[in-house]
Amino acid sequence: MSSKPIMGFPATSQDDYQLNVINILRHAARTFGRQEVVSIRLDGSRLRFTYKDTYARVKRLANALTGIGAQVGDRIGVIDWNTHRHLECYFGIPGIGAVLLLINIRLSPPDLSYVINHAEAKYIIVDETLIPIAEGIANQCKSIKGYIIITDRPLSEIKTSLSPVYSYETLLKEANPEIRWPVLDERSAYGACYTTGTTGRPKGVYYSHRNVYLHAMTIGNNAEMTSRDCFYQLVPMFHAMGWGMPHAAFLIGAKYVLPGMYNIADLGSLAEPLVSEGVTATAGAPALFMPMLEYLRKLDKKPNLSGARFLSGASEPSLAMMKGFYETTRAEIVHAYGATETTPLVTINRLKPWLEKELTEEQKWDLKRKQGYPVVGLDVKIVDHEGKELPHDGKTPGEILIRGPWITGSYYNAPGSESNFTEDGYWKSGDAGTMDEEGDIKITDRVKDLIKSGGEWISSVDMENEIMAHPGVLEAAVTGVAHPKWEERPVALVVPRPEARDTITKADIINHLAAKFAKWQLPEEVVFIDAIPKTSVGKFDKKVIRERYKDIYKK
Amino acid sequence: MSSKPIMGFPATSQDDYQLNVINILRHAARTFGRQEVVSIRLDGSRLRFTYKDTYARVKRLANALTGIGAQVGDRIGVIDWNTHRHLECYFGIPGIGAVLLLINIRLSPPDLSYVINHAEAKYIIVDETLIPIAEGIANQCKSIKGYIIITDRPLSEIKTSLSPVYSYETLLKEANPEIRWPVLDERSAYGACYTTGTTGRPKGVYYSHRNVYLHAMTIGNNAEMTSRDCFYQLVPMFHAMGWGMPHAAFLIGAKYVLPGMYNIADLGSLAEPLVSEGVTATAGAPALFMPMLEYLRKLDKKPNLSGARFLSGASEPSLAMMKGFYETTRAEIVHAYGATETTPLVTINRLKPWLEKELTEEQKWDLKRKQGYPVVGLDVKIVDHEGKELPHDGKTPGEILIRGPWITGSYYNAPGSESNFTEDGYWKSGDAGTMDEEGDIKITDRVKDLIKSGGEWISSVDMENEIMAHPGVLEAAVTGVAHPKWEERPVALVVPRPEARDTITKADIINHLAAKFAKWQLPEEVVFIDAIPKTSVGKFDKKVIRERYKDIYKK
Repeated sequence: MSSKPIMGFPATSQDDYQLNVINILRHAARTFGRQEVVSIRLDGSRLRFTYKDTYARVKRLANALTGIGAQVGDRIGVIDWNTHRHLECYFGIPGIGAVLLLINIRLSPPDLSYVINHAEAKYIIVDETLIPIAEGIANQCKSIKGYIIITDRPLSEIKTSLSPVYSYETLLKEANPEIRWPVLDERSAYGACYTTGTTGRPKGVYYSHRNVYLHAMTIGNNAEMTSRDCFYQLVPMFHAMGWGMPHAAFLIGAKYVLPGMYNIADLGSLAEPLVSEGVTATAGAPALFMPMLEYLRKLDKKPNLSGARFLSGASEPSLAMMKGFYETTRAEIVHAYGATETTPLVTINRLKPWLEKELTEEQKWDLKRKQGYPVVGLDVKIVDHEGKELPHDGKTPGEILIRGPWITGSYYNAPGSESNFTEDGYWKSGDAGTMDEEGDIKITDRVKDLIKSGGEWISSVDMENEIMAHPGVLEAAVTGVAHPKWEERPVALVVPRPEARDTITKADIINHLAAKFAKWQLPEEVVFIDAIPKTSVGKFDKKVIRERYKDIYKK
Repeated sequence: MSSKPIMGFPATSQDDYQLNVINILRHAARTFGRQEVVSIRLDGSRLRFTYKDTYARVKRLANALTGIGAQVGDRIGVIDWNTHRHLECYFGIPGIGAVLLLINIRLSPPDLSYVINHAEAKYIIVDETLIPIAEGIANQCKSIKGYIIITDRPLSEIKTSLSPVYSYETLLKEANPEIRWPVLDERSAYGACYTTGTTGRPKGVYYSHRNVYLHAMTIGNNAEMTSRDCFYQLVPMFHAMGWGMPHAAFLIGAKYVLPGMYNIADLGSLAEPLVSEGVTATAGAPALFMPMLEYLRKLDKKPNLSGARFLSGASEPSLAMMKGFYETTRAEIVHAYGATETTPLVTINRLKPWLEKELTEEQKWDLKRKQGYPVVGLDVKIVDHEGKELPHDGKTPGEILIRGPWITGSYYNAPGSESNFTEDGYWKSGDAGTMDEEGDIKITDRVKDLIKSGGEWISSVDMENEIMAHPGVLEAAVTGVAHPKWEERPVALVVPRPEARDTITKADIINHLAAKFAKWQLPEEVVFIDAIPKTSVGKFDKKVIRERYKDIYKK
């Protein structure tokens, strides 16, 4: 905030009681002690814990870390799948005042060593299957004082050049089972994620305990989860604090299922717990949900997931996918919007009771394509290029600015990144969108991904979604490419469904688009390919696409 | 907290973004702008507003208050029924940094003037029907600079000795419709309630913005409310911040119904909106729900309130009442526990999914009599008289201690009240109870209401509930009275149902009790009376009862 807050009359409340994230688990273990935590192993077998068991292991982990020398403020990196140990790190590391450094295992080695060096990580906790990632950068990372190996085997059986190494399980076994948690200033860093934008080096977002705690409460208030829910942690836990779900699930008291090594090539293993564990809520990206739907569609016996809600973020879920999920399983795709910088929940798309009455079924489906309304607790506005707030008319697009307790106010030690924030403390999302009278936001594009053609705008996202609604299309990306006459023109990349591969034509796509787009907006080039280039978090990599096709209109 | 929090690694989060309660309404007006607020007038007619309308009036109220001289930190008293103006005060007064002083209209004039003088209130906002209350103490309250009269008539028609007076509606009409809210330090007092204990002078609890905001989020996480709910504000808005429901309803986006002048003698008017407005959630005390059930039972056409949840606090709801509500209307009574000092939510009784499977129907009903489990966010423990924590065995009773962000850490300007807090910051509730392995609390008594007989304990609350389960009994109170031989012995006060008045006998009560209580615990005296003496908040006034029957065992 730009101005110093005004102090009013003194209150008698316990305002010095600090929002420490460990309290969520500590209280949950007391209140929902018998609730289940299920961790699926590589071989498909399942470990079953209770909240109480989880808390007992977290206490040991905290003592173990202190035992080997971890101190308040130390950054401790974690390289792991979505496992119960990863979950333990979510509470144990910040519990002692250290910083949970989540590491995206899909980063390139140079980015990875950059992140670890930038954070000056002191320890790395790494699953044995991911040791090569740690080994690949060990020489470049001088701040690391030790590696804690997650394995069920004796440490002597692990062949690695990492040194010194500890066994996670041995440390826990030998640790004191009881702990007196330090009381941390709630503004202390709880954990960190590095953004994986398509430009420049990763930038560090260091979430405070207060941030994570308030975000968890907000998930609880908006995702409509209760202790009767079963939450399935599909979102990688290194993405934006696992989307806050590990904290929210425990706050609410829900059953919590961890898929272990989430291999998108093995959709059967990923989909199976939906039914066998009784999943009622999950969160993930269309990049995962889309192939999962394809998989479920092919099953002889379709799972009945009636009442289940799949929070979908990272990119816009296509209408075809949302309808497909509902028709195939009765699960509801709930569109939500956020970013690493926003912990991530900013908007959620839930049908308001008056719209439930007023809209036709088709209008309701159409509304689901919007990103939804900003949750209470955040200042969200849409501004023009001069920073002036735009009307909530659902038409006038501008950049989305966001401010609030779980939004980052800076990037850690990143000179020059101040331009990502306004003077009055808003984070500039870089997303262009509209807000309607209901407060619902529709993202039309990344500000830099809008296509500027002959002085007019074309929304690449709208065009992508329209192409993906074609029954013969699996995925599509649209980007603007330099054009000698019109400044930019759109080019469409299309991945056909296997069954349409030999029959679908450029004319099919153009004719399909012509129903919704002006003639001048239609792309001159439609390129059929096998896969859209993607970033490490599964978003279309527009930078790569633009580079690859930069000369397509220059011929 | 006793020790200074430790500062860890710096975070990049917007931790200086202050939790100001006005943001709840400001964001709700943006996100749920069309949601309804219904205010029922004295004549039964209804005013219908939207969230957006409410926010527009709140902005005008804030500007109006500033216009007549209200400043940051001023205490502004409100004497009103549960009306839309009261609601506006909930947001408008704290919005400008002044303190919402809620005034219990059932206080005696000496206590009332004590409260207003202790708070040094600068303005009083008073409904025209309650002017006599303000007039009765005006001479004793020198800090008051003006009275704002809530009336739909011209001010000239109001006959009153109060001076100077303003018209609430005229002030709003003339006020600027737009405002730039000040950013308040979240530790500033949002509002104040004075406790109405049965001993000593009222004591002031001054809730910070942070306290009220976090409590609202916690209600949202535990009361399972959504924007599809319709919340009915039955709890008087001067009781413990209206139990936090006005804030929680807006945070969640629920429809909000205000009963206006809630007259317990006119149950028809109070009950009617349950059906006509589609109420799905409300909160109140058994002192209200009990006669409401009696009323509903006599209706030819019983309302179907299936799915509705009635949060019941202040005192233990009897099993008979809970079953009665379910059988008559299908509404569920949800037992909750708290106090003015706790904003108030401390525990809530919801059936956990594993208990849903394990317990018989009868066990489930029995469980509902417990106060429920502590919500996540609060440290709650049960200690013996030396402060040592007792086991969670569901058997060993001790005093309930509570600590957390929405618990008071002191009483405002009340020398000597420090003994109500432990050194490490817990508030001593004065309630005696047990906690079981599930974390569920059962309050057995006020610590001072336990009956000490021959070196053993008798729970007066257990005995009251057992008597009230007798079909011929409407209400019953049990208290300990001095006894020459046994130190104390119980005496039972019983209000028979009208139809049982001529037939019920002392032997009926004793025989009924004998099934559950040891012979030595049974009361020697059972007194049939027309009404149990009650405090201004509807609790049994044990002080009065003890005084009235103090010699009953001395004959």
